[in-house]
Formats: sequence, C-alpha cells, structure tokens
Amino acid sequence: MIITMKTNASEHDINNVVDKINTLGLKAHISAGTQRTIIGVIGEGNHDHQHTLRSMASVENVIPIAKPYKIVARTSHPQTTIIDIKGIPLGGEQIQVISGPCSVETPEQMTASADAVKEAGCRLMRGGAYKPRTSPYSFQGHGVDGLKMFRDAANQYGLPIVTELMDVRELDNFMKHNVDVIQIGTRNMQNFDLLKEVGKTKVPVILKRGIAATVKEWILAAEYIAASGNHNIIFCERGVRSFETAYRNMLDITAIPYLKQETHLPVIVDPSHAGGYAWMVPALSRAAIAAGADGLLVESHPIPNEAWSDAEQALSPAELSQLMQELSAVAQAMGRTI
Amino acid sequence: MIITMKTNASEHDINNVVDKINTLGLKAHISAGTQRTIIGVIGEGNHDHQHTLRSMASVENVIPIAKPYKIVARTSHPQTTIIDIKGIPLGGEQIQVISGPCSVETPEQMTASADAVKEAGCRLMRGGAYKPRTSPYSFQGHGVDGLKMFRDAANQYGLPIVTELMDVRELDNFMKHNVDVIQIGTRNMQNFDLLKEVGKTKVPVILKRGIAATVKEWILAAEYIAASGNHNIIFCERGVRSFETAYRNMLDITAIPYLKQETHLPVIVDPSHAGGYAWMVPALSRAAIAAGADGLLVESHPIPNEAWSDAEQALSPAELSQLMQELSAVAQAMGRTI
Amino acid sequence: MIITMKTNASEHDINNVVDKINTLGLKAHISAGTQRTIIGVIGEGNHDHQHTLRSMASVENVIPIAKPYKIVARTSHPQTTIIDIKGIPLGGEQIQVISGPCSVETPEQMTASADAVKEAGCRLMRGGAYKPRTSPYSFQGHGVDGLKMFRDAANQYGLPIVTELMDVRELDNFMKHNVDVIQIGTRNMQNFDLLKEVGKTKVPVILKRGIAATVKEWILAAEYIAASGNHNIIFCERGVRSFETAYRNMLDITAIPYLKQETHLPVIVDPSHAGGYAWMVPALSRAAIAAGADGLLVESHPIPNEAWSDAEQALSPAELSQLMQELSAVAQAMGRTI
Amino acid sequence: MIITMKTNASEHDINNVVDKINTLGLKAHISAGTQRTIIGVIGEGNHDHQHTLRSMASVENVIPIAKPYKIVARTSHPQTTIIDIKGIPLGGEQIQVISGPCSVETPEQMTASADAVKEAGCRLMRGGAYKPRTSPYSFQGHGVDGLKMFRDAANQYGLPIVTELMDVRELDNFMKHNVDVIQIGTRNMQNFDLLKEVGKTKVPVILKRGIAATVKEWILAAEYIAASGNHNIIFCERGVRSFETAYRNMLDITAIPYLKQETHLPVIVDPSHAGGYAWMVPALSRAAIAAGADGLLVESHPIPNEAWSDAEQALSPAELSQLMQELSAVAQAMGRTI
Repeated sequence: MIITMKTNASEHDINNVVDKINTLGLKAHISAGTQRTIIGVIGEGNHDHQHTLRSMASVENVIPIAKPYKIVARTSHPQTTIIDIKGIPLGGEQIQVISGPCSVETPEQMTASADAVKEAGCRLMRGGAYKPRTSPYSFQGHGVDGLKMFRDAANQYGLPIVTELMDVRELDNFMKHNVDVIQIGTRNMQNFDLLKEVGKTKVPVILKRGIAATVKEWILAAEYIAASGNHNIIFCERGVRSFETAYRNMLDITAIPYLKQETHLPVIVDPSHAGGYAWMVPALSRAAIAAGADGLLVESHPIPNEAWSDAEQALSPAELSQLMQELSAVAQAMGRTI
Repeated sequence: MIITMKTNASEHDINNVVDKINTLGLKAHISAGTQRTIIGVIGEGNHDHQHTLRSMASVENVIPIAKPYKIVARTSHPQTTIIDIKGIPLGGEQIQVISGPCSVETPEQMTASADAVKEAGCRLMRGGAYKPRTSPYSFQGHGVDGLKMFRDAANQYGLPIVTELMDVRELDNFMKHNVDVIQIGTRNMQNFDLLKEVGKTKVPVILKRGIAATVKEWILAAEYIAASGNHNIIFCERGVRSFETAYRNMLDITAIPYLKQETHLPVIVDPSHAGGYAWMVPALSRAAIAAGADGLLVESHPIPNEAWSDAEQALSPAELSQLMQELSAVAQAMGRTI
Repeated sequence: MIITMKTNASEHDINNVVDKINTLGLKAHISAGTQRTIIGVIGEGNHDHQHTLRSMASVENVIPIAKPYKIVARTSHPQTTIIDIKGIPLGGEQIQVISGPCSVETPEQMTASADAVKEAGCRLMRGGAYKPRTSPYSFQGHGVDGLKMFRDAANQYGLPIVTELMDVRELDNFMKHNVDVIQIGTRNMQNFDLLKEVGKTKVPVILKRGIAATVKEWILAAEYIAASGNHNIIFCERGVRSFETAYRNMLDITAIPYLKQETHLPVIVDPSHAGGYAWMVPALSRAAIAAGADGLLVESHPIPNEAWSDAEQALSPAELSQLMQELSAVAQAMGRTI
Repeated sequence: MIITMKTNASEHDINNVVDKINTLGLKAHISAGTQRTIIGVIGEGNHDHQHTLRSMASVENVIPIAKPYKIVARTSHPQTTIIDIKGIPLGGEQIQVISGPCSVETPEQMTASADAVKEAGCRLMRGGAYKPRTSPYSFQGHGVDGLKMFRDAANQYGLPIVTELMDVRELDNFMKHNVDVIQIGTRNMQNFDLLKEVGKTKVPVILKRGIAATVKEWILAAEYIAASGNHNIIFCERGVRSFETAYRNMLDITAIPYLKQETHLPVIVDPSHAGGYAWMVPALSRAAIAAGADGLLVESHPIPNEAWSDAEQALSPAELSQLMQELSAVAQAMGRTI
C-alpha cells in the first residue's frame, strides 16, 4: 500500500507513521515530494492495517496496491478453469444454458419443465425449493419436499440440478439429495458462514452477485469459498440495483470481460432476473454470450402464466427452444458451441 | 391492485384477465377509458398474483395499491412503539446513544471501552464478537469468547449490550449470554431464515438496512421478524451504496422521517459506517437527531489508532464525550433529552 | 392517470378532488373499493396536473398511465425509422460503426485518423472540436479551428462527420461547416434550449444519455428535439453512473431492446466511454450488436498513447480493424451486415 | 500522481514510462518493491497526463494525489468566505432561508409570495422565470416577462432575488433586471459554456449539484466559475439520484461537512427538490442546519394546491412560518441565528 501524508505533516508525524508501519510488521519507504511526503509500504498488509494507518491524523490517504484476492485470481492461476458437473463442462468451449422454473411447485410441473428443458437442448436444470422472498406473505418454497420433487423429475431426463441454499442447516439435505450445483443467491453473497460451509464441500457453487456488490466484493466472496477448500466456483451476474425503474435490475455486461480477466473461473449470466420480463430475455442472453459468458441461467415454465412466482419473466417451452436457436448463431460467431 | 390493459387489448383479452383474477380468488372492476381499459382488483392479492397478471400478453402494467406490510405499519398501530431494553426506553422522549468498539479485542480493551461509554453518558454498549468481513483474510472476531469478554466488561458498568448475530447456529450462545439487543447486520437484512429465528425470541432486534435496500424491502424484512412473533424491532439507517466515493456510504437522512411515518417502530442511525471517518461523525449525528432519529449507534475505541478493525471511523473517549454535549443541544431543540 | 385516496378520506375529500379534476379540464370516474376509493382521471393531463392533485391532503398517490412522449413513440409511428446521413443509412439492416479520435488535435492526426477509420471499413467519422472537460485545466478543444481541420480530413476520405455541439451560439458554425451529424453530449441531454435549437434544423442528431438519466427522461429529451421539428434522432447509450469503480461507467445493455420497443428511432452504443479502457471495447461492442444496436461510436487514434485526451480508451488502427472483423461475425448472427 | 507498474513489467517497460513522464515535462521517482515497481511523478500533471500514462500497456494504474481544484479549495484559502448579497451575508453566523414559488405565474401570485416570504422572516426570495422541464409539454416559464414580474414583486418587499439561468443568451436580460443571485440548475452543472459566462460577471452564483455528480465534479464545476473570475459561489445540495423510489431524490447530507472542509465557500440545501413532498421539508431542513449548512432554498406558494408546477412540494405561508420557528431552535443549538 501507499500512504500519502497531509501537506502540513511534520517530520515527527512522518516518524510516527513509520513506527506504526514497523509495529504492524511491515516496512516503510519514504519518498519526499515537493508538496507532500509519500510512504510506500513494503509487505502485504490487509484491510485492517489500511484502516489503522488511515486513522492517523497526519495521514491524508492510504491506497492499496496489491489485489486482496489470491486463490481465485488469474494472476495466481493463469489457466482458465473448466468445472465438471456430472460430466458436463462449464467454462470451456461449450456454452451451458441452465433452465427451469423459479419455484418447484408440483411433480407434474417439474416433469413438464424437465421435459421442456431437455427438449430445448439444455444440459442442466434449475429450480427453487427454498425461496428467498421479499415478503413473508409470498410463497416460501416447498423446502426439502421440493428438493425431492426436483431430483425425481430431473433424474427422469438425466439432468444435473442447480438449486439455491439459503440456510446452513439445510446443507445436509442438499448433500443427501445429491444436489449437483449449489446456488448462493444474491441476498446471501456476503453470508460468510454460508460461504464457509459450502467451501467445505466439493460441490460446484454458483455465486450470484449481491444486489449492489462491487466486482471486488464479489470476487472476495468467492475467495471465502475457495479459502475453505472448494475451488469449483461459478460467478453469476444477475443485474444490479440502479436508478432505472423500467426494468427489474440493470444487467452489468461489463462484469463479464472484467471477471474473465481478473479470475480464472467461469462466468454465467441470469438474464431473467436482470430484465424481469420474458420479452427482454433473448436480447440480454445474446449480449451475454457475445460479451464472453460461459453460460446462462434462464427461467422457464411449462405454462408461465400459471407459475407460482416470477410469472412474468419465465419463458414458455417454445420460447426456450427459440432462444437456443438464436444463441446457437451467436455462439458460433464467438467460436463456441451451445 | 390496478391493471392497465394495452391500448390494443380486445374484449376477449379483457375477459381472460377477469377470468384469471377470479381464479386467484379476487374480484374485478372494469373501467373502460377512451384509450385503454383499466381493471381495479378488489381483494388483497400478493406479489405473486401481481406477477401472474403481469405475465399476460394483453396487460400493460400491474400497479399495487395496498401496502405489503401490516404488523409494523403505522396504519395498523398508530401509537409510537417504545422498546424497553433492560429498563432503558428506546423510541420515546429520551434519545439513546449506543457506543463501543467495532470488534471485541481483549478484556482490557473492553473494560476501557465500557468505562468510556459510561463516562460519556451513554446507556447502552455495542461491540462485535462475530464480524462480517469483506475479506476472508481480515480478523473474523473472537466468536463466543468475545461474547463473554463483552458481557463481563459491560456488567461491570451496568450497560446492556448490543451485538451482531450472523449465523442461526449461534443464537443459542446469544441467549445463553443474555445478549440484550441482537443486531442483524447490513449483509443479512434479507437472510430470511435468520430473521425468522430472531423473530421467535422476544429479544429486541436492531435491523440494519441492506447496502442497497429500498425502504419498502427494509420494512418487509422487519415484517418477517414481526410475523414470527417478535415486535421489538429497531430500524438502523447506516448509509447506502452510491456513486459517491468521497465517503464510505451515503447516509439516507430522508429515511428517518419516512420510516417514522410508515411504521410505529423506533429508528436509529449509525453515523460511523455511513461516513466512514471519525471527523464526519459529529455532523452526521447532529443531522440524524434533528431529522427525528431516536438514537445512534456510534463506534468508539479507547485508542482508535490501535483498533483491530475500522480504526479510522472510531471516536476516542474524549471525542465521544464531546459528541454527547453537542447532541444535548440538538436534542433540546427537538424537545427531547439525551 | 389514476388517483388513490387515503384510506381515511371522507366523501367531502373525494368531492374536493373531483372538483379539482374538473377545474383542470379533466373528468373523474370514481371506484369505491373496500379499503379506499380510487379515482380514474379521463383525459390527458400532464406532469403539472399530477403534481397539483398529489398536493391534496386526502390523496395518497397519483399514478400516470399514458406515456408522456408522443412523436418519438413507436405507438404513434410503428415503422422503424432509418436515418439517411449523406446516403448512409442508420437504423436499417446495415450496422454503422462511427470512429475517430476523442479530440481534434492536428491536421496530421486527423488525416491519419480518417485514413485508419476508412481503412477499417467504417463509413462515418467522429471527432471533438469542442470538448466538455470535467476540469477547467484540461484541454478544451480547438473550437471552430478544430471543425475546419476535421472537415478537411474527412473530406479527403469521403466520410460524413459527427461532432459535439455544447453551446447554442456555435450552431451557426456547425451549419457553415456542414456538420453531418450533431452530437448532444451526456452533460447536455437536458440542456433544453440546446435541444430546441437543434430541433429547428434538419441535421441528424445523436442524443447521448445523461449520466444518470432514466430511459423515460432520455426519450423525453428526444421528444424536445422532435417537437421542434427535427425527427432525425439517434439515441446513444454510453454507460451510466453506478457504484462500481472498476470501470468508467456501467453500460446499460438493457436500454437497447427497451428503446427499440418504445420508440421507432435508431439506437447506437458508445463502448469507449462506457468501459473507459480500450481492452474492454471489443466485448462491449459485440454485446451491443447482439442486443440489437444499430451502430457504435468507437474512439480510435493513430497513436493512442499520444492522444491529448482519453488516451486509455482509444483503439489503435490495428485494433479498430480487428474489431470490425469480430463484429462482422456477430452482425451476421443477427441477420445484419456491417 | 503515482504509477503502479504491472507485476511483469520489465526494465525496458519502466524506462519507457519514465521517458513518457519526461516528455510530459514531469519527473519520475522510481521505487522498486518486492512484487512491483511504483513510480512517483513529481510535478503537477493533469487529467490528460493521467490518461496518457494509463494507456501504456505495462502500467497497472495511475493514482492522482494532488487535488484537481485550486481557487475554491480551502487549502489555498483557509478563511471561510462570506458572500454579500445586497448587504445580506451568506456563509457567516446568520443562516439564510431563501424561499418562494417554483414558477413565476402571475403578478398577484408573486406579490402574495413575496409577502409570505417576508412575513416568515426570510431575507431572500427565489422564483423561476425560465423553467427546465423534463417534458416539452409542461409549462416552460414566462421567460423575461417572468423576470419583470419577479423583480417588481420582490422590490415591494426589499427582497433580493434568486432565479435560474439556463441559456447563455439570456444573461443580458439577467443583468438588465439586476438579478441578485444567478442559479445554475442541476441539469446545467456541467454546461461549461454557461459556467464560463457567469464566471465573467461578479453576480453571486448558486451552483446546484448535478443529479449524479460526485462532490469532486461539483467542486470542479465551481472551479470553472472561479477560474473565469467570479469567486462568489454558493454550493447547493439538492438530493442525488438513487435506487430509492419513496422520495424524489436522496439528500446527501454528508456533502455538507465534506464541502465545508474541502472548500471555503458557503453551502446551502434545497430540501424541497430533495424530498419532493412538502411534509418532508421540515425534517430535512432541520437536518441540513444541524449538519452545518449555511442556508436553505425552500419552495413555497401562496396556495400550494394551485401552483402551476411542483405543487406537492411547496409549503404554504403558514407552513413556512412554522418552519422558520423550528429552525430557529436548531440554529441556536448550532450557535447560529436565523
């Protein structure tokens, strides 16, 4: 890190800062400018050290230089990671579209969903058994019964399943029902105890971006999982909160190339929650693939109008098939397949 | 709710929407305008119903009318709630300043902190035993050992304690050590399982606003706690994420009068996390009281420069005492005491 | 518009609101619900009328229904508009990439720029003679001398020119030098006097989105130009301000399909100002085309490292050529050409 | 500024950067760390220089150190500036509340407004003759006729007038009618030609913050005015755009202490546009004064419900008088008068 002293800092002030740096186990390199002194700090240091130094009255600012993430950083692992999900590669040349309903509702709905997902050419299925809902009066999901329904329907079609974990106490149920990919939702991106627990498994994790998380915070959330031992992490951009009210969220398309540069992990996009309306999904999906995304998480429902939740953003089976065709052309333009 | 049909909707389309409304157990009231038809929906309806209706092709928009929160709404409970914390009232004429360090570090630091908090005239103490940290490489808190240190130090000075709960599995420890006020942090405002669990206790809860939560989402998070049976809820505004980088967060001062109008619950403000720098705390604290806040949550440390975390935003004992004096004048201008 | 009355509104209150509606030349349609009365207002009404009604003490809310824009709305002009720029179509099957330097610097730089732009296969050239700079101490542009240099260089290569107008008093110079497309910059999106003046010409206008303008405000800014008589308007999305600091702005990719649905006008994207770094431009450009954009505005410079402004976001001639090839494949996937 | 090189930068790369620094007329100070080299740049440098250096492939980042503003900075002028407006001081011990209607409507309305403003104890009057309206179909103001009506009404009560200038071509009219304070509105904060023109006069200028302007950009906009020769500048915080939809804008209360520290100029607050509803104005006004604001800009109207614009945010004469009494107590708590 670099410390810029206030313009009126005295030699005594500077010595105090240097002493503090030494106390923290770091070394100082002083550079006296015409207007102010700048102190380079040699050695790692962490967020807490920065705060400590910034709290000194003679310090103007403390500027971190080193990236705070390590395991997930591309600098520490230049090769792109491809994650194996029951034999299906995510992060390689083949793009994966994960589809299915917002909520697990009934066995019939799940079978019809799985059928449509398979039919459209998708290789992985999503569905929510535990539902994070803004209102306590909305449908909260079927819980473990939903997990079973989902597992049964997906098994019929040989589809690995992706579903959201909200509560550490349910992880055992996830393991018992062989959930293939654990999704950490937007509201739990910084639920650090949950991150640590899924980090102790080897199950691939989709880590959705927090509603207003910076990319740096998001990568550090992944670092929590990685630091606990699980390196099978997939970033999922799903739109961030903005001032714009014409759509549900604002899809941050720039996050895709940025993450691909900063980390070695796969990046997928959820166009359904980003836009919030089914008619926006094709354009956002094409854009995501063209920007370099490795996959998509797309909500679909056998009969969208009868969905118990998020009805207006679900694609019908026909719309999902149509989307897969459109995306095929874009994937080809990117030198990839779908 | 109100449904606005597209301008080109046919009578057939309108009948379909009316049928769907009836299927949902609600009633329709049609109002044909010159340009478009508007359908008033009589009966409650919820978020899911709105999504279902919005998913119909002939529907332009669905506009909710009723407020989605009930128990915490002032309309359902016009009288202002005063919460009793071990005999100390929060939400009444007397303003409460809750102070203490970011992290519980050592028994000595906690005793010195408690001494300074008491000496300054505060009646409640804060401190973090479990720490939500952006980086896995920052100090994560002492956990249950920290709880004990905190409890011991506060008991010497007769100060009720406020501390953050991050993980449902730790709630038993909180009950065992008689935590007087449970804090739900910014990152867990929509950790619904955690909200439900603290809702099953009767312990007062400080519910911090999510980093980019709308006031409506925040009130609904409180409704989760209330719906589980615990009505002792205190809102804590702590700044929201914005485009401005000159301060840590943007204190949303308008949330104070808005919450006081919409709900019957107390509202406090955390000026330390809002501004991020100790020198900003006095101005933000005065503004909060002048806007109608019932209390403050202020970080202080016996020796800020030696704090293990958030050093640059902690007040020294002298600064805390000085703040209490300044606030006394503002409280008086508001017809209150401190 | 629709008026929702407060739950405690009396019959007297309702009559007062109805009287006010009549005074404004509109008609009321009362719908008494179980909890509250809703009043539909028949007739147009405008923003000021909404404010007036919302100011009545018994009114809970006023909800506009009709779209506030007319001439530029697709509902009033279902056919997609193709704008003719000196024989080059913008908005049709052929995608246009407009390129050139941030600032007009020297005749040599402009000639080299024009050569590179033409060579890469672009059909239109951009360049700034009048520069809106955040600091008064940054290069402010050559002004009318810059216009001349630009015109001369572009003429050699038969390229129509796009350049920014900041001050109404310079419009005569723009007309005199036959500027082919007038750009209204981000900071002037709501400079209404400027919009009215360019609205009196027939010169095509690129209207950049304000740094934090909603899509609705942006469309209304276009409506200002259209209402003054000039319908040759091109929307340009260039990223909006957000909390994210890893890139210069956040490209709002969703704005593209949204604008294409709401209006009949062409939409282009400026990936250079959106990302702020040259290395991000290809990914953002591909995404924009895949989302349905009709063109791009891309900064390039003969020697980026010697650019007088925005050096880090300019493409070199080789990078521009490479970009055009990549985009060709994406355009093809969209059934378009470039 | 400080340059951080990429970790893989070679000695050749470093030499290239040093050469470029020398070419720009600056000097380099190399500091080789264990992981990367850091180059301190001695000498001023500006935004363009930063961009140039950041465009070099071996450069990781360029970090500005010096503040980009000079004349308005407190470091260059430690004493607080008090601006004299026809004998009324703004920025000193006495707080100024500037009030009046959104729009100049009729001579009768202006006389009644002036009467109410004077009666409430305010010493300055506001009113809009030229109106920046989001929609071209809203009332656009009476223009120069409005200026005359305003001047006449204010003269009867000896009130200096504050009114908004939108178009450089109208500045002569402002001078002719002796406008006492020129307001630069939110949408024109970065209309640099307008800033330069008002900078050539000596008339005090209220510079409203852009809807999503950072404090740094805002101060630089003031620097434009100052650099043209006019140092009579008053900052006006009026709320910024945010994700929150419950209020019109989000009042950034933290900007007040921040600006008071960074600059020597007065800061006022517009609570009317910030909140957007008359009932929020008292709480926001009290908070502004308690945070250290030197004044307020408050919309009032003889009969709010009949206002031609912004009706729901205008205070009635009785509410304005009541506000002045409330503020008197808060001013006293701050050691000031009103």
